[in-house]
Amino acid sequence: MPKLIKKRSRKAGLPPGTPVHIGEKKTEKIKITLYEYDEVNFQEKELENLEECFSAKGVPTVTWVNIDGVHEERILQKLGDCFKLHPLVLEDILNTDQRPKMEEYGEDLFVVLKALTYNEQRDEISAEQISLILRSNSVMSFREKDSEILAPIREQIRSGKGRLRKMGADYLAYALMDIIVDHYFLILEKLGEKIEFLEEKLVADPTASTLQKIQKIKKEMIFLRKWTWPLREVLNRLERGESVHVREGTRIFLRDVYDHTIQVIETIETFREMLAEMMDIYLSSLNNRMNAVMKVLTIIATIFMPLTFIAGVYGMNFKNIPELEWRWGYPMVLLLMVLIAVFMLFSFRKKRWF
Amino acid sequence: MPKLIKKRSRKAGLPPGTPVHIGEKKTEKIKITLYEYDEVNFQEKELENLEECFSAKGVPTVTWVNIDGVHEERILQKLGDCFKLHPLVLEDILNTDQRPKMEEYGEDLFVVLKALTYNEQRDEISAEQISLILRSNSVMSFREKDSEILAPIREQIRSGKGRLRKMGADYLAYALMDIIVDHYFLILEKLGEKIEFLEEKLVADPTASTLQKIQKIKKEMIFLRKWTWPLREVLNRLERGESVHVREGTRIFLRDVYDHTIQVIETIETFREMLAEMMDIYLSSLNNRMNAVMKVLTIIATIFMPLTFIAGVYGMNFKNIPELEWRWGYPMVLLLMVLIAVFMLFSFRKKRWF
Amino acid sequence: MPKLIKKRSRKAGLPPGTPVHIGEKKTEKIKITLYEYDEVNFQEKELENLEECFSAKGVPTVTWVNIDGVHEERILQKLGDCFKLHPLVLEDILNTDQRPKMEEYGEDLFVVLKALTYNEQRDEISAEQISLILRSNSVMSFREKDSEILAPIREQIRSGKGRLRKMGADYLAYALMDIIVDHYFLILEKLGEKIEFLEEKLVADPTASTLQKIQKIKKEMIFLRKWTWPLREVLNRLERGESVHVREGTRIFLRDVYDHTIQVIETIETFREMLAEMMDIYLSSLNNRMNAVMKVLTIIATIFMPLTFIAGVYGMNFKNIPELEWRWGYPMVLLLMVLIAVFMLFSFRKKRWF
Amino acid sequence: MPKLIKKRSRKAGLPPGTPVHIGEKKTEKIKITLYEYDEVNFQEKELENLEECFSAKGVPTVTWVNIDGVHEERILQKLGDCFKLHPLVLEDILNTDQRPKMEEYGEDLFVVLKALTYNEQRDEISAEQISLILRSNSVMSFREKDSEILAPIREQIRSGKGRLRKMGADYLAYALMDIIVDHYFLILEKLGEKIEFLEEKLVADPTASTLQKIQKIKKEMIFLRKWTWPLREVLNRLERGESVHVREGTRIFLRDVYDHTIQVIETIETFREMLAEMMDIYLSSLNNRMNAVMKVLTIIATIFMPLTFIAGVYGMNFKNIPELEWRWGYPMVLLLMVLIAVFMLFSFRKKRWF
Amino acid sequence: MPKLIKKRSRKAGLPPGTPVHIGEKKTEKIKITLYEYDEVNFQEKELENLEECFSAKGVPTVTWVNIDGVHEERILQKLGDCFKLHPLVLEDILNTDQRPKMEEYGEDLFVVLKALTYNEQRDEISAEQISLILRSNSVMSFREKDSEILAPIREQIRSGKGRLRKMGADYLAYALMDIIVDHYFLILEKLGEKIEFLEEKLVADPTASTLQKIQKIKKEMIFLRKWTWPLREVLNRLERGESVHVREGTRIFLRDVYDHTIQVIETIETFREMLAEMMDIYLSSLNNRMNAVMKVLTIIATIFMPLTFIAGVYGMNFKNIPELEWRWGYPMVLLLMVLIAVFMLFSFRKKRWF
Repeated sequence: MPKLIKKRSRKAGLPPGTPVHIGEKKTEKIKITLYEYDEVNFQEKELENLEECFSAKGVPTVTWVNIDGVHEERILQKLGDCFKLHPLVLEDILNTDQRPKMEEYGEDLFVVLKALTYNEQRDEISAEQISLILRSNSVMSFREKDSEILAPIREQIRSGKGRLRKMGADYLAYALMDIIVDHYFLILEKLGEKIEFLEEKLVADPTASTLQKIQKIKKEMIFLRKWTWPLREVLNRLERGESVHVREGTRIFLRDVYDHTIQVIETIETFREMLAEMMDIYLSSLNNRMNAVMKVLTIIATIFMPLTFIAGVYGMNFKNIPELEWRWGYPMVLLLMVLIAVFMLFSFRKKRWF
Repeated sequence: MPKLIKKRSRKAGLPPGTPVHIGEKKTEKIKITLYEYDEVNFQEKELENLEECFSAKGVPTVTWVNIDGVHEERILQKLGDCFKLHPLVLEDILNTDQRPKMEEYGEDLFVVLKALTYNEQRDEISAEQISLILRSNSVMSFREKDSEILAPIREQIRSGKGRLRKMGADYLAYALMDIIVDHYFLILEKLGEKIEFLEEKLVADPTASTLQKIQKIKKEMIFLRKWTWPLREVLNRLERGESVHVREGTRIFLRDVYDHTIQVIETIETFREMLAEMMDIYLSSLNNRMNAVMKVLTIIATIFMPLTFIAGVYGMNFKNIPELEWRWGYPMVLLLMVLIAVFMLFSFRKKRWF
Repeated sequence: MPKLIKKRSRKAGLPPGTPVHIGEKKTEKIKITLYEYDEVNFQEKELENLEECFSAKGVPTVTWVNIDGVHEERILQKLGDCFKLHPLVLEDILNTDQRPKMEEYGEDLFVVLKALTYNEQRDEISAEQISLILRSNSVMSFREKDSEILAPIREQIRSGKGRLRKMGADYLAYALMDIIVDHYFLILEKLGEKIEFLEEKLVADPTASTLQKIQKIKKEMIFLRKWTWPLREVLNRLERGESVHVREGTRIFLRDVYDHTIQVIETIETFREMLAEMMDIYLSSLNNRMNAVMKVLTIIATIFMPLTFIAGVYGMNFKNIPELEWRWGYPMVLLLMVLIAVFMLFSFRKKRWF
Repeated sequence: MPKLIKKRSRKAGLPPGTPVHIGEKKTEKIKITLYEYDEVNFQEKELENLEECFSAKGVPTVTWVNIDGVHEERILQKLGDCFKLHPLVLEDILNTDQRPKMEEYGEDLFVVLKALTYNEQRDEISAEQISLILRSNSVMSFREKDSEILAPIREQIRSGKGRLRKMGADYLAYALMDIIVDHYFLILEKLGEKIEFLEEKLVADPTASTLQKIQKIKKEMIFLRKWTWPLREVLNRLERGESVHVREGTRIFLRDVYDHTIQVIETIETFREMLAEMMDIYLSSLNNRMNAVMKVLTIIATIFMPLTFIAGVYGMNFKNIPELEWRWGYPMVLLLMVLIAVFMLFSFRKKRWF
Repeated sequence: MPKLIKKRSRKAGLPPGTPVHIGEKKTEKIKITLYEYDEVNFQEKELENLEECFSAKGVPTVTWVNIDGVHEERILQKLGDCFKLHPLVLEDILNTDQRPKMEEYGEDLFVVLKALTYNEQRDEISAEQISLILRSNSVMSFREKDSEILAPIREQIRSGKGRLRKMGADYLAYALMDIIVDHYFLILEKLGEKIEFLEEKLVADPTASTLQKIQKIKKEMIFLRKWTWPLREVLNRLERGESVHVREGTRIFLRDVYDHTIQVIETIETFREMLAEMMDIYLSSLNNRMNAVMKVLTIIATIFMPLTFIAGVYGMNFKNIPELEWRWGYPMVLLLMVLIAVFMLFSFRKKRWF
């Protein structure tokens, strides 16, 4: 489960635009990969020292700089200087507790997204922040770690299959966003299966552990919602073409991602409604069972209390209890008891208690 | 009950616009039917191989191409090539887990709808996705299977009755949407009857099974809502005449469907409120019954516990209990017991416990 | 209580604009009354055959055609032809399960409203659909039956009192809407009295029947809301002068009806909040009573169980129980029992259980 | 507590614009006071007969006509004629069950407000409707009764202190609205104190009477909200300068009242949230106590039922019960009982039941 | 915990614009500090008497006047005169029960904010109102007391580090707002930790005290929300550049604070949802435990009541009970009892009661 909020106390009181990393501490080396391509050419290299970076600028083909890791403030600062990033952009890239957003800084289009994957071992959603910067001929992407989520894009560039190599930097940015949103569906599929499983369990045999699982998913939904809702506005603004770097032809694709985002959001809402229903079902089944338990208790008590009382009466040691001397006293009392029990059972039956 | 979300894992990582079928696997052959008509002429043929398709284009009369089945990617790809459909349109047609939407791709107006029918055998709503493409003189409709829902339109074209043959392709598209929305009312009628039946049962004899039925309908409402809400915007945009293919005269009819959609949505909301009320009624009646059960238990215990205690006292084996020797000891104790019981009953009566 | 939805299965599959009556079947003859008036002249006649209808058109004075009953499709169709009504308008007039709305069909302004009256015998709200068509010099009104709700307007026309005879057809349409909205206040007055009565009962003596009455009113609120909410938009659009037939001077009056509608809606919302509060009060009083019942049971059990146990111990038949031989054994045990009872009562008192 | 809705049955069916008093019947004489002032002059007189009224019109200084009492239709009608009020304005003034609103009738700006005061004796909020009419040089104010709420304004005019005498009629209208809104804060202060007191009581000793008090305030909140929400729009429209009579310099003051209104509304919402929290706290404390009661009962029953059973076994009269003959039979049984009791207590302790 | 509303009864009836202090009474002397700086020069002085104030006006460098304490009406009035503040501005500065807002008074931009700090000793949030006035070359800030929240800004000015000394008065105003919003994150961090701690406790061992802590945080959330929501609009309007004093270059920074505010608001909403979930978990665990308690009681009663009854029967003193004479009577009855107990336990096991 993600932390509710990440520590940012270190940052309080520093002047705005100071690059401070907020998020999980990591020790891996930051990996910077440069892809340069057009329809015919393709080149990929890992940047060892940042001086190479400078030579990459100004190339007419599309350039993609992918940075895996944002935990070393010094390196990021250097990158920022080298690519002339606005201090606030750099600050936001380092702060991995951002909400998804889109902002324009002069020529630069800056987009922050949350990439979600399902961690099977820990049985929970893990979120990673991905920041994109789109310029006229280049895209920069900053990720928290080196995960496999963007691998298909790398493959498409390398192989030259699909539309990607034929299009500009804006299409690359679109493709990156598209693959991130596509992964949301995988998460939803996983959760959908869980919900359907829990739903069946709820009817068959509702236990406290079923309830706990429902509540765990409800909590995950809160986070899912937090990460996807703002995306709607981000993509809507991109699709409406607020940015100069997004070409007419790419807009139709952005509309498609926008549409997917809305579908993701609506599915989340449906899941939430389903889970709320399931909570209702659980609680009313709990009430029903409580009712049943109470009825058993009441039936037992109502039958045996009068009988025990009668037995008590004839267990008294008064000298002078005439019934005790009767010949048929004992059988008659037994008969009386049976009659009372039958009458009680009959009246419960009439009240439909069992 | 529909799946919460359809499997789309197969698709993750593929380049956008790749046609992948998402939905129930089917083995039926895809059926393509071509209708060409104007006020006087009418021609209907089933297309066996797709080459014929080409000749259909460019005919001045209205052309309706109806495709029943979207589960064979190869055929759909061919159709897409032959009718020059945008890759994203094709992708959406194949993905039967779309939300209702309207999009324009250049000249093409692309509309996705959910057609609902009531499956009497399985006693549940079954949903089918219908995609429409409207061009200046033609309409293409893609359906998941060959159901009877569009049959009346076919009949109107064949017989030439009504306005349909006299109007253009936009009116045909309207007629298709109108019949889909009209079917929503049939679903609502069915659900309305069920709700009214359950409401009466709830007053007469509320059981756990009544509750389960209420919750089943509540769940169906979640889906109904999901499928109809977006329609509101789709039809509103069509009615306002955002598309060039929709003629002035058809707009008044689209406003009518729009109006129906709003009525459908409002009825769904009314149903939801009714069901929420019914849940409240069920729960409060459960509480009332619990209260009644508890009162019975308390009355019984409060009367018999003191009596049994008294009987117990005179059942003690102390040597020296003077009352046991009294002549009228036994009758006096019995009288005392009756007095206690009467007093208890009287005080419960005063508390209005029965 | 109104049906949740009226049967419209008959209609499914028919071409749009086919006039089909949806609503309660009736056998009364449809009554058509024609009123023609200006400031000095006034004429009223009941139309026997529809040919007369034609002569009425084109008269310079204001013409009001009132049709009581929409259940005979044939007559309505004739009327529609004779007054050149749009097929969709006719279809909507016949369908008495419409939501309030306003639409323009060319020159015609078409308004659908729900007139509400309180049926004292059946102790429920009864709703009737009234459709109005406003043209430059005439108003047509279609009602489900011949009720008394519009009688004051008829009287004002006949007597010539008030502003009505001096104004145009738009003012007549306003006057009809105004009287319909005024009746909403009568309904709200009735419901308000009921709610206040129930509120007092809830404090004095809450029973399950009080709850049922609250829930009945809550259900009526759902319908009231459904019928009045859309009116807000209808009147707002009329007041803003979207229609050409509404003169400047009448607009100020329409603003007044609009204002009344908002007040009706706000009162409904207030009632709903009150009823929700009352449900809360009922449920918490139920909980309080349950608590009280449980306390009685627990007090009784906690006092008598230990005492009965002690009595049981000295009722055992062991040969060798020394206490039984003691001279003061019996009184001492009685004393012990009294002490235990007093101690228990004292500790409950301390816990504020009674 | 105010009535949910005031009787207006008298009015149904009357032509619009007929002045009918709706509200509490009163017998006091209506009091009409005329104030005329500019920076140097000031004159105040009580109008005995309405002819004087006419002479007041047309004076270049600011004129304030204050009418205390709207329950005599005849006098109000005369006033309306004399000041040429629109019939709908007059109707609204007489109807004391209006919602706050602002309307323009030609030159006249018509504002309806609710003035609230706290009735200490009856311990409830009492509301009074105040209608204002602003013209270029004059303000008319209509009140239900002669209360002290506007007294400070009168004093400011008389004494000439403050800005009031230097400004125009629009500032006077502002000052009247300002003092009404200022009184809302007094009401909120009163309610805030009550809520804080109840909050403390809820923690210390929650009783059914605490709950009743919470619910009473919740109900008052419903009315407060109803009376203040529409004010937001009224003042927003005034501030934005929709009316010609409101001068530029006064607008900055109207913005201030608008700001106060928003603060009132937000405080009401905060109170509502607090009260909802308090309901939650009450209910969960009720549940907790129920739980505690049940535990006591269960502990007692679980300890004494087995013991009583054992005593019962050795109270049986079988000839042949060997234990009864044992020498240490009685002490051993007592020991057994103690062991059982200790074991039970121990296991409850482990379950943390006490 | 802050008061729900601060006393303002003193103010009722006074003319608008009268400076009246509303808030906590204090006795400290008001401290006025003047900072004058540009990129090279810096001067700081504490103002002893207000005559100095005048000389400060008109200096070309940036001027920051910071006033610590607003509880002395006389001094504030003098300041207002000396800086020509609008009476309504002065009134608002003195009233520490304002909602966050932004208003323009001619040239002056007036902003009210709430600065929040966490009071560790009293374990609660303490709020302080900060009012800012931005003019072309100067900023005035009014605070309730001399707290450390603005200290970093003072340090940045003194040391000349960062961007602050190079920019204008608008950047200073931004920096003040930024540091206030940054402190909200510290509060949220604190609350987030508490919520996570409570969440773990809720699973491990839910007690009534856990519930009380949850409800305390819920209450704090109500206030946090009240203080931060309006900020959204304030910063949005500032960012959109509604004010003339905000230069183009500063706007990008204001967008950053705006973004932080949205993040604060969204985090608050997430916290609220989490807390609502936690309440649900608590209540359902309470229900579960109640259920468990009831089951224990019912199991015990259902087993021992029949057994005690049987023992009672053979404890009766009838002369003629044949079983009592049987040789194996006692063991057979014991066996019967064991069989009944086993059967009962078995049937409870089948019902999954334990």
